Order: sequence, then structure tokens, then C-alpha cells
Amino acid sequence: MEQWVTVIDETYDGRRSDVIAHVDRRAKTEFDAIFLGGGSAGRFGASVVRSLGGRALVIDRWPFLGGSCPHQACVPHHLFSEAARELDQARALAGRLWYPSFDPGASSILELVDLFRAKRSGPHAHMNWQSAEQLGIEYLLNAPAMVIDAHTVEAAGERYRTRNLVLGTGSRARRLGIEGEDLAGVFDYASLIEDLDYEPQRIVVIGGSKVAVEYGSFFRSMGCPTTIVSRSAVLSSGSPGRMDDDLRDYVVTGMRQRDLSILEDSTVQRIVGDTRVRGVDVVTPDGERHLEADFVLVGAGEVPNTESFDPALDLARDPLGWILVDEQMRTSLPGVYAVGDLVGPPMEMFKSRRSGATAARNIMGLETRLDVSDYPDFLHTTYEVSWAGLGERQARERLRSVVTIQVPPPELSPHETPLPMAEGSMIYGFTMPERTGFQKCVIDAESRRVVGIHHAGHGAKNAFSYLHHLMTRPEGFTIDELGNLNELYISPEYFIGYARLRSSQADLAGM
Amino acid sequence: MEQWVTVIDETYDGRRSDVIAHVDRRAKTEFDAIFLGGGSAGRFGASVVRSLGGRALVIDRWPFLGGSCPHQACVPHHLFSEAARELDQARALAGRLWYPSFDPGASSILELVDLFRAKRSGPHAHMNWQSAEQLGIEYLLNAPAMVIDAHTVEAAGERYRTRNLVLGTGSRARRLGIEGEDLAGVFDYASLIEDLDYEPQRIVVIGGSKVAVEYGSFFRSMGCPTTIVSRSAVLSSGSPGRMDDDLRDYVVTGMRQRDLSILEDSTVQRIVGDTRVRGVDVVTPDGERHLEADFVLVGAGEVPNTESFDPALDLARDPLGWILVDEQMRTSLPGVYAVGDLVGPPMEMFKSRRSGATAARNIMGLETRLDVSDYPDFLHTTYEVSWAGLGERQARERLRSVVTIQVPPPELSPHETPLPMAEGSMIYGFTMPERTGFQKCVIDAESRRVVGIHHAGHGAKNAFSYLHHLMTRPEGFTIDELGNLNELYISPEYFIGYARLRSSQADLAGM
Repeated sequence: MEQWVTVIDETYDGRRSDVIAHVDRRAKTEFDAIFLGGGSAGRFGASVVRSLGGRALVIDRWPFLGGSCPHQACVPHHLFSEAARELDQARALAGRLWYPSFDPGASSILELVDLFRAKRSGPHAHMNWQSAEQLGIEYLLNAPAMVIDAHTVEAAGERYRTRNLVLGTGSRARRLGIEGEDLAGVFDYASLIEDLDYEPQRIVVIGGSKVAVEYGSFFRSMGCPTTIVSRSAVLSSGSPGRMDDDLRDYVVTGMRQRDLSILEDSTVQRIVGDTRVRGVDVVTPDGERHLEADFVLVGAGEVPNTESFDPALDLARDPLGWILVDEQMRTSLPGVYAVGDLVGPPMEMFKSRRSGATAARNIMGLETRLDVSDYPDFLHTTYEVSWAGLGERQARERLRSVVTIQVPPPELSPHETPLPMAEGSMIYGFTMPERTGFQKCVIDAESRRVVGIHHAGHGAKNAFSYLHHLMTRPEGFTIDELGNLNELYISPEYFIGYARLRSSQADLAGM
Repeated sequence: MEQWVTVIDETYDGRRSDVIAHVDRRAKTEFDAIFLGGGSAGRFGASVVRSLGGRALVIDRWPFLGGSCPHQACVPHHLFSEAARELDQARALAGRLWYPSFDPGASSILELVDLFRAKRSGPHAHMNWQSAEQLGIEYLLNAPAMVIDAHTVEAAGERYRTRNLVLGTGSRARRLGIEGEDLAGVFDYASLIEDLDYEPQRIVVIGGSKVAVEYGSFFRSMGCPTTIVSRSAVLSSGSPGRMDDDLRDYVVTGMRQRDLSILEDSTVQRIVGDTRVRGVDVVTPDGERHLEADFVLVGAGEVPNTESFDPALDLARDPLGWILVDEQMRTSLPGVYAVGDLVGPPMEMFKSRRSGATAARNIMGLETRLDVSDYPDFLHTTYEVSWAGLGERQARERLRSVVTIQVPPPELSPHETPLPMAEGSMIYGFTMPERTGFQKCVIDAESRRVVGIHHAGHGAKNAFSYLHHLMTRPEGFTIDELGNLNELYISPEYFIGYARLRSSQADLAGM
């Protein structure tokens, strides 16, 4: 594995410049698909083409497969969120039990970014290895490519012909288009990883999305004074807008209690500075404010990467520029598919991977459709916050009779309720019960179906994939079925056990 | 909530002696069921009787509902296991990132047991409150009871008549029947909680079961030299015997690497001491050994608590003494049911709760059966270790064609593979990749069904309840269906994503 890491490291820092090729030069078979972009969509798509007996080539400008996720996005974010949780716990429990006094100078954003940069080639190398050795994927890496036409791609000085072309070139952070955006010290999620070379002392995060909330929470937990500036209420639009109101309240209240400053309904007028950023001018509902900052993170959405095929391919796009595709991932041009972030939200791994696999199956003659209109979602603050289906309010707008099962129960204060408590919240449960988390299960009392699940805590996120699958089957998933499962007690979510307490009722009552 | 806690605390330490009664004295209705024992089986059973329009009374000798789980068993164990994980991480990462140098004198088993004892009334009070206020359960607590006949129970000086009697009096630790067992310093899981009044310096754990491994791991992580003495290989019998061999190897290897001493195929001859325990004499495959110890934990299984109904009820029992019941939880006496730990293994929460609910439904005329022969299971070391279905070896013994998806893959060393990596293992992934965990998915290549899931790490345990449900449906759950779920990336288990990489293959190959 070591040599796989070395190749990536030396290529990425410029000591090597040759293409990293894993291509069967003796094969005479035509490519069924070229995947332009070796992120998760391309990698999964190529694997599926190969599984179905076809031949695929993945081409990427980076010296590794996996794309932005393990390089600049999900993986560093997960590392940082785990650090946030660890530090919040070390701070909260300082001087109790075995926890030493908390040294506010010990945690360094730069050090953690450095750690990630130093070690990210490990997961990268694993994906190069796995793709070649386990999946038999052919690839050209460190190979910037240009699309010549719908069946021809030029990379590393050669032209490659293909029956089908699958575009998976991803997206990048959207610019705000405001004054001061190009000052040193203004970052997005990618440039933060690539370029950070100092320790931030005062941070402003622009945006109210998952990225903004996650990075804001991380910076604050690292000990850095941080303000989130959001045009509307944080976590109120897009997928986070579908979480239950009480869950959002619990999460946002917790963020504020950890001294994360949140300015909602506020607009950034300009970023100010001289050689570097010095602050941000903001219009808030209470008037104009100047926020000092030596670090600004812009989390204002993304735009597609189209440079390698635009204008060679005249593809239909939606008003925001995303490549339009149908449920088979077909673009407006025959033989050209688009997958992953390039086709717009949700910018989630399941969609990337499944869209790549869907394109591959259609290319190989298996008609397959992908619907991403409903999916489980999550984000990190100091918690894992997971949700799927309807919030209570949204359910009441649609259904005649709704009951909820909530923990802590509505009658009790979180401060007197050490529940929900399970792995990851046990020590809090016995010291600071208000920190154990929150959950709500939303049920249609008439059909008895579970229609919404909402959780803040630890260890429940993974189950949401499976429970969402059960909920969205055509026959649904009733509270009675839920109550008949075998919970692994203490379950991070209490859905199964609490469903059992209620499920024998003819007329369901909440709790 | 405060007064609910106070009542329990003052009753438990003897300042109050009156019965804690939540009984509708004006009701003239006969009891459909008396639940003798207010543990999870009785509490869930009473709730279901109530949900179905019946009347139930729960009677318990303790001043709280919930039974041994929140008092001496699952809840303290979860607290201790979280402490183990925290301390292992603090020790492993000492001096790196923000982690201070590790003070081996800072962690105290006694202090943590004291914390649990001081705060356990919180969860207890929540259950008393919930049972009365949300579930409408009638109960008599702090009320030792005697069964007079199959329809009569005497408690707190009164006789209560009932149509049906549900016995849920639980179990207690089995004695070994060896010399020295009564010395001061010899504990079981319950007396450890009740009686510990010194800091152990050198520990021997007798047994190879989940309890022995979990407590052994905890003691070692707290910094105390600890030896587990097991008659056979640890985790090789009962439910842990069904985990995949490679999972067990990963887990046990990790325990040894953390300097937990494990003597297998070894028998304790006697516990030696004077006024207190001083050590344990053991016969190992390499001869006799004396292990010094000032603390011995006996984890050698359990026996039923039958004192309150024996000999009034002449119930059929199995050879180990457990009360025999059918799948409707009916004993050999008409109108008498038995539930929970009293009916023998598995001594798990899902079985307790579901057996109580099953008895209740049958009592209320809804014929309901409970089969606990197959269930997901877990234990804690410094990891959450979860398993369900068949291990690879067990699958190969039964099926013609088996493939596995394993992480780290068989070809690579855990030291060079930072996978599986997700919440709870991110920092390890970037510093000590061999600690991130292990997983294996076992698939019947002919039917394409998932037949076994095995995981060591964090955050996957909860999903096992749902995935086991899917696997055990009559129609099963195929790798193709698994690969079509929407994973919440980074998923603590990689089952969904990796299934997708393989699922399009006509002839499944492992990885």
C-alpha cells in the first residue's frame, strides 16, 4: 500500500508528472463508457459497467479516484466534526472524572488541517488500489481531459473513443459576487483544505446550509470565536428545512449555548480588509454591523464544473446551470450521461454513487431509474443530527391525525431528562443530562405508518438508511411493525422500544 | 421530576419505608394481569394490557420500575464502556493534537461506580414518571410480594386477585461453587455496583461471556491490570459464538494489544485470601498459576429468581432451572405466564420487553407468538461489536456458494488500511489506522441474500436491528436490494456502498 500512497503524494506535490494509468493496452474491445471524472459517481459507474461485462475507462485530473469527497469534502468534514465532539466533551467535563483541566490553547485548526493533508493520501491510495485490484476498473489519473465530441475524449495526449460518455466532473463552491471576496483569508470548503497556512483567531461563516453549520460548529469547538451569518434562519431551506422544528430548535439552541454566534435574516454587504481580510460588514434585522474576522468561510452553495466539455457538448441545463438529466441519467444528447454533483442537488454521496451506477446499468442495457426526491439526511454539529420523512408540522399539514413519540417528552425539560442516552451520550447522561440529545418519531395515526424520524445524538445516523427504506416501501412501515423489531439496547434511537409501548393501542396516543 | 428522584433515593437508602403506590383505588375492575416484577418485561407488558383496554398491576420490591437493567446491568455497563472507549482514546493519542499527556492515576473505577450510584435514580425516576403519567400503568413499588396461588398475590399486607399472573422476577448471577467465593473482594455485576468501596489494583475476571469481556475491557481501560480466565476461548459460546471468526479475532487481538491478559482453556480452582481476596489459583494449558488480585469479578452466567412464587406454584422448569414457557409465554400452569430473564437466555432487553408484550397480548385475547431463536447481538470492548446471522465459516458449512465483503480487505493489513472509518473512528483513521475497526458481510451467492453481518467499530450497532429485520423476512434481503438503499455517508458500516459495487455482477465475487 505504501507505494500507492507515494505515487499519489509525489504526483500531487509535483515531483512526478506522468499519468497514473491502469489500462489494458492489449484489449481491443471498445469502451462501453468513458467516465469523465473519477469521483464516487464515476468510480461506482465504472465498477458496475465492469460487473455487467462491459468495458469502462475512468479519467480524472487528480492522481487518485474518489473525487472531492475524500480530498476536500466529506472525509475532512467528518474528521473535523469528530474533533468538535471530542473537544466539546473535554471542555464540558474538564476537571470531572479523569478529564484534565481544559487548555483552550491546545486545539489548533491549522494542525488538524495539516494532519488531514498529510494523511489523506491513505484513503486515496486505498481507492486506487481497490479500483484496480478488486474492481478491475481501468483508469487514467493525473490526466486532465477535454471532450472532443459525444464519443471522443482527449487525455494525456491521446484520443479515446467510447460508445457512451458519462460526465461526472463535479462542482465547486459558488462565489458570492461581493466586494472583498478575493482577499487573502477568504476560503471555501476546498481552499480551506488546500491553502490554510495560519491559525484563525476570529471567524465569520457566510451561509445557513449544512456546510456552514457544520464548519461553524467545528471552528467554535476548536475554541475560535465564530459567527454564522445567514440570509434566513439556519437549516431552514433545502433538505435541512425538512427536519422537525423541535429537532432544529434543540440543535440550534445547543449551538448558541456553546457560544456559537448566529445572525439570521442577515446579509453580508462586503468583506473588508487590506492585504488580508479584516472583517465583514453585515446588515442584520437590528441594523448594520461590522464583524471582525481574520478568516471567512463562504458556504453559499455550488456551481457545476463544465470546463472540460463546454462548449464541445451543447447540453440542456437548468436555470442554475446544472446539467439536466432524466431518471436514467441521460442528458439532452444521445449517448451522453451526467452523474454526481454535476446534475445538482442533493450533493450527497448516495446520489453520486447511485447515479453513476444507474447510468452504467442503462448503458449496459438494463433500464434503471433513480429518484432522489426523498432521502434520509444528516449533519454534524457536536451531534449527529439525522432526519427522514416529515417533521411534525409538515405531517399535520398533510394528514388528518398525527401522533408523535418524543424524547425528552414535551412535558419535561431536557435538563431533568437524561434521555435519549446511549453510546456516546452516557457520560453526559450522568453529568449533563440536557446534552444527551433529542428525538421524535412522527406517525400517521390513521394508517399507523411511521412518516417521520428525527434525531440528535450519536450512533443513530446509520439506522436512518434502513428505517427510511422501510418507511418508503409502497406498503409503508407501521408503528406495530416497528415495535416488533429486536432492538439492540441501549439503542441510540428509542424508536423501536417506544413504538412497542404504544403499538397495541387501537387509537394511537403520542408520548 | 426532582420529587420523583427524591422518593426513590430516600426509599432506597432506608429513610422512607412506605409503598410507592400508583393504583386506582376507586376502580372496581378486576385485574387482567398482575405482573410480578417491574423490570422491562413487566413494564412493557402492563403498558400493552393497558393499551388493549385491560387493567394491570405491576408489583416490585424495588422503589422503581425498570428492574436490574438501569440499576445494575445494561445502563452502568454502557456508562463504563463509554468510559473505556474515552480512556483508550485519551491514552492512545496522548501528546498528539489537543490531547494532553495521559495521567494513569486519573481514572478511578470507584469514582465511576460512585457517579453511577449517585445518579441512577434519574433514569429510574423517569421510568416511574413515564409509567404513571404517559402509560397509565398501575404499580406498587418498594413492595416485596408473595404469590399465594395462580390468581392471588400478597404485597404490602394486602392480597390482590388477578385473572392472570405474569412472573417477571428476573435472574441473578450464578455462583461458581468454589472455595473462596464468599471472600470480601469477590463481586458479580450486581454487587460490584452495590458494594464496591475501594479502588481495585489488580483484577481477575472469571468467565468468557459478554459480561466477562465487557467488564474486563472496562477495568483494563481504566488502567487496572486485568486478567480474564475463561474455560474455553472467550466469546466462543452462546450468541457470541455466532460472530464471524475474523471479527472475533480482530476484537480479541485488540483486547490483547491493549494489555488485557486473557487465559483461555483455563479453570479457576479456588479464590484465595484471608480477610479479603488475595488471588486466584488457575489451571491453564501450561500448568497451574497463581494470579494475584484484590478484586475478582465472577461472570459465570445467571440463575432465576423464584423465591416469591416457589413453592406456591409448581411450574415446569428446564434442566438449568429456567421457567419453561411456550411461544405465547405460557407456563405449565393455566393463567400463569413467565417473561424476561426468568425464562432463560437470551438475557437481552428486546426479549424481555417483547416477552412482556407477548404475554399481555395473549392475556387480552390476541394470540401472539415470540420466537427468539435468531436475533442481532452486540457487546462492547473499546468498540461496539455487532453481529447478526451467519459468520463466514458457519455460512460455508450450510451453503454451496458464499461470498464475503470485508473491510479491511483480506489482502491488506489493518495497519495500512484506515477503513472502515466513520463517526467515532475518524481520528484513529488519521493517526492509528489499525484501530478503525473491522467488518464483514456474508452473502449466499446463489440466492444473492445477505446471510450475515459483522462489525467492530462505532455507530453501526443501531442499524443491525433494522438490517437483521430485513435479512430475516421470508423473502430475505439481497445484495441488490441492499445496494439500492440511500446510505448516509460516511456510513459506520460500509455494507450499502460496497454491496452496490458488487451487486450488478451475475456471478458474485467477494472483496
